[in-house]
Amino acid sequence: MKLHGVLESVLYCDDLESNEQFYSDVLGLERIAAREGRHVFFRCGNGVVLLFDPEQASMVPAEVDGTPIPLHGSKGAGHLAFRAILAEIDAWRDYLAEKGVEIESEVTWPGGGRSIYFRDPAGNSLEIATSELWES
Amino acid sequence: MKLHGVLESVLYCDDLESNEQFYSDVLGLERIAAREGRHVFFRCGNGVVLLFDPEQASMVPAEVDGTPIPLHGSKGAGHLAFRAILAEIDAWRDYLAEKGVEIESEVTWPGGGRSIYFRDPAGNSLEIATSELWES
Repeated sequence: MKLHGVLESVLYCDDLESNEQFYSDVLGLERIAAREGRHVFFRCGNGVVLLFDPEQASMVPAEVDGTPIPLHGSKGAGHLAFRAILAEIDAWRDYLAEKGVEIESEVTWPGGGRSIYFRDPAGNSLEIATSELWES
Repeated sequence: MKLHGVLESVLYCDDLESNEQFYSDVLGLERIAAREGRHVFFRCGNGVVLLFDPEQASMVPAEVDGTPIPLHGSKGAGHLAFRAILAEIDAWRDYLAEKGVEIESEVTWPGGGRSIYFRDPAGNSLEIATSELWES
């Protein structure tokens, strides 16, 4: 019995609308569900990325067929890294720059792998990285 | 050019030590890196779960070979769901109960799939769910 991976990764965004546009139009993720003002969910590889309004997710009870869904929600910049292949890192950097997204940092890891860092409109720290980063 | 999945999912924990023990000994994740008082990282499937002390990650500059690694950090309960297969959900529920971990909720989703919810020692909302949840 083991955990086979991460199915849902979560970030919190005060302004869901501008963030939805960013994850969808700029990052190219497929939107799979949304409840206006509360959340928007995206597919990413074999997992999903959940964006929640932190006030709604932490304060407003939610349920499925009468069963409560636990509340959560945080304030401050979260972090998430997306997986890319090495050949795409430069292309992502150039593409994001074209879209007006500032590259905050660019790291070549001593053990192998590369990362670029930028922010979503909510200020969360996003990273696009090669999986070599964690293979050593 | 696309994002191939989530490589790093992040939660914040004020008490890293008790959380490290929980993710390692109770959830059975493999610890792959740590810096005492700042972070502990675990492998999970083809991704990694990063636990950070929110004060350290948001306030104390970090760098790799002189290149800054962007700061981040949030306060409040985050959320993350792990992927399991359907046959394991009951086993996880029983196992967690044996370990003294309270099951906060248990959901059978209308579109297919099951989830159990519990908390880590920091209060983050954790879920073990079947991937059917997001296949419809």
